[in-house]
Amino acid sequence: MKTLLIIGIGAGHPEHITVQAARALARVDVFFLMDKGDHKGKLNALRKEILERHATPGAYRVVEVRQPERPAGPDYRTSVNTLNARKQAAFERLLDDAVADGECAGVLVWGDPSLYDSTLRIVEAIAANSARAVHYEVFPGVTSIQALTAAHRITLNSIAGAVQITTGRRLSAGMPEGVDTVVVMLDAQDSFKALVGQNLDIYWGAYVGTADEVLLSGRLDDMAQTIADARQQARSQHGWIMDSYLLRRRV
Amino acid sequence: MKTLLIIGIGAGHPEHITVQAARALARVDVFFLMDKGDHKGKLNALRKEILERHATPGAYRVVEVRQPERPAGPDYRTSVNTLNARKQAAFERLLDDAVADGECAGVLVWGDPSLYDSTLRIVEAIAANSARAVHYEVFPGVTSIQALTAAHRITLNSIAGAVQITTGRRLSAGMPEGVDTVVVMLDAQDSFKALVGQNLDIYWGAYVGTADEVLLSGRLDDMAQTIADARQQARSQHGWIMDSYLLRRRV
Ligand SMILES: C[S@@+](CC[C@H](N)C(=O)[O-])C[C@H]1O[C@@H](n2cnc3c(N)ncnc32)[C@H](O)[C@@H]1O
Ligand SMILES: C[S@@+](CC[C@H](N)C(=O)[O-])C[C@H]1O[C@@H](n2cnc3c(N)ncnc32)[C@H](O)[C@@H]1O
Repeated sequence: MKTLLIIGIGAGHPEHITVQAARALARVDVFFLMDKGDHKGKLNALRKEILERHATPGAYRVVEVRQPERPAGPDYRTSVNTLNARKQAAFERLLDDAVADGECAGVLVWGDPSLYDSTLRIVEAIAANSARAVHYEVFPGVTSIQALTAAHRITLNSIAGAVQITTGRRLSAGMPEGVDTVVVMLDAQDSFKALVGQNLDIYWGAYVGTADEVLLSGRLDDMAQTIADARQQARSQHGWIMDSYLLRRRV
Repeated sequence: MKTLLIIGIGAGHPEHITVQAARALARVDVFFLMDKGDHKGKLNALRKEILERHATPGAYRVVEVRQPERPAGPDYRTSVNTLNARKQAAFERLLDDAVADGECAGVLVWGDPSLYDSTLRIVEAIAANSARAVHYEVFPGVTSIQALTAAHRITLNSIAGAVQITTGRRLSAGMPEGVDTVVVMLDAQDSFKALVGQNLDIYWGAYVGTADEVLLSGRLDDMAQTIADARQQARSQHGWIMDSYLLRRRV
């Protein structure tokens, strides 16, 4: 039997890790780090900082693997499924080759493992396959949503209101019905621009919780271009961007 | 100038507090604890356990106040507004009477301060009133949603899907459009029962993260009555209940 811990580490601030997750890190013999290539190096830098602070010194190994590529294609879901199949194969190789029987492996997941992350689905598929005896545990983390609202010192929901969490891609279809608050993640396209004129406030944050944090907020109609410019500038400065935003109907 | 720290402590498991929040606790001179009356005593017991573990021994005071009552009334929003006005008055009295100039006060918020909690709105209103010089900071926490998904080892969203967070009251209007996942909090009515026959899975949890945790999941059509019975039983055993659930369309 091999054990695999799926550990949420928070979304950028090294101290957003929970006490429970920090303790879990100390149990791990082998960490799997998936590297997304050069420009995402900062994410792995945070992961390593967290290991240095919380894992048991001298008692763990780190195995780095290059994250498989997501194939281009018109259907996002299909291409994510293909990517996940490749990740699963990579995970299986790691479990077979880098983890001895009785050992404990660990995967650090950005933010919380439940939110727009495939690790849980992949590990569930591996554990369901009787070829490998794998026991896995999940440790929750502060999401980038909580980091965003705390940084802006705002509530997620209005009083008794509902909230939708969605992707940039889906927001292109317009502000959803039945909610006055929408949180948008994974937006590659400035999708908020299409919602100008709809009487919304926006609370935007990039690299929230890190030293590079940028926060902007205000009426969407006033801020849309400023935020689009800030995104563009951040992308050219850092080579990549990690940002999200909350939209709320004004009352 | 007085400082007020609004600190998310996680939703039941004492180790779901973040390292940052634990450090913030150590800065506090005076903690405000709002007691909801007898049967909610367990929540304050967790708060006290957290203080004993993380606050600076001998260096802090605790001021307990009885939480004002929410007036009964047909409109939930109005009655919450009245409750918040009463809470605000109670907070202002505490700040005036129990906190010296230059001191740091702290409020422990269940889960994350952004989610179905009024502390932020109240403190914002106090700080906006120029009568008091108050600086406030917000520390995010693991929400009961993250605790629920981690306990069930499930993802919050389906691949590339959207998620709605809502209340039991709102769910009575039916499964929202445009999302395949709904998280329901603050449900006093077994609102999930009205959704039987709609091809949903349910993942339910009560007292998640605590020693009293109960988890049930499966097809909603098979589980609705079992969960309703478990809620009833938990309520009579503990005198109160704190539970939430995730509903997902089956594919
Ligand atoms: C693949 S998802 C992972 C989310 C993560 N599991 C969580 O709990 O936040 C990545 C998206 O999360 C958001 N995100 C993650 N970290 C962020 C940060 N520090 N600041 C702003 N947005 C962030 C961005 O929208 C980004 O596109
Ligand atoms: C007033 S809201 C506060 C939510 C909190 N701020 C958070 O971040 O989870 C209270 C509701 O949260 C949910 N909840 C809080 N703690 C929970 C727990 N340990 N297990 C299950 N549900 C919980 C229940 O739906 C409850 O009615």
